[in-house]
Amino acid sequence: MPSIFDKILSGEIDCHRVYEDDHTLAFLDIAPLAPGHTLVIPKEAREHLHQLSDEAAAALGRALPRVARAVLAATGAEHYNVLQNNGESAHQAVPHVHFHVIPRLGDQGLGIQWNSGKLEDAEGILKRMHTALTTDESPSR
Amino acid sequence: MPSIFDKILSGEIDCHRVYEDDHTLAFLDIAPLAPGHTLVIPKEAREHLHQLSDEAAAALGRALPRVARAVLAATGAEHYNVLQNNGESAHQAVPHVHFHVIPRLGDQGLGIQWNSGKLEDAEGILKRMHTALTTDESPSR
Repeated sequence: MPSIFDKILSGEIDCHRVYEDDHTLAFLDIAPLAPGHTLVIPKEAREHLHQLSDEAAAALGRALPRVARAVLAATGAEHYNVLQNNGESAHQAVPHVHFHVIPRLGDQGLGIQWNSGKLEDAEGILKRMHTALTTDESPSR
Repeated sequence: MPSIFDKILSGEIDCHRVYEDDHTLAFLDIAPLAPGHTLVIPKEAREHLHQLSDEAAAALGRALPRVARAVLAATGAEHYNVLQNNGESAHQAVPHVHFHVIPRLGDQGLGIQWNSGKLEDAEGILKRMHTALTTDESPSR
């Protein structure tokens, strides 16, 4: 099932195009949290960030500051959030990787609740992470 | 004034190191929103994302899926958020670019409030963005 972002990439659905390069596309969110709220997506069709190839992920990373500079210039905002959600319980609505670039303009912007705890069992967590990274292979395109 | 992350990068302060490459470092957040909450930072010392060089930004983008795979493997989480805050009003606490990779584990994780509006004056916003992008130059390292 193609997502709405696949349809935007294929040209089947129009978008308010902000930026495009070989690997990424950025366009205005049609239900913005603040004026200038922009989505930055890879052309590679993956649901979650951890599924992206190195090539697609590096291109996304490179595009983000460029898009952020355009968002700031267009809105006059000085502060902003960059958010990327993976999975329904993490607030993902469209099953194609997308970064939100959300300016903070007065009361408008991303609402964040920060209930931090204490770091526990750091050694156990790190051991499992290092094992995972040692055997990690980037997904191929 | 070197930030706490500059001191981690210089080795003056210890961290729970998750991942490192030529341009990026990842380590456990000591006040996690959920177990496995990890920070991914560029070695390039910049306060905000839009100030990063292309090289640093691409390396960060490339590192994020790798770190995300390690966070999922270590915690058993399936869903997660990636968040990067710029400026005090956008919840930035340390003045050195950092991406949070935050697993969603039951009630633990990032709290999000999503008060979306309607897209207005898209043409005006786009015009200003395109002007900004046309004259955009990536900051040099």
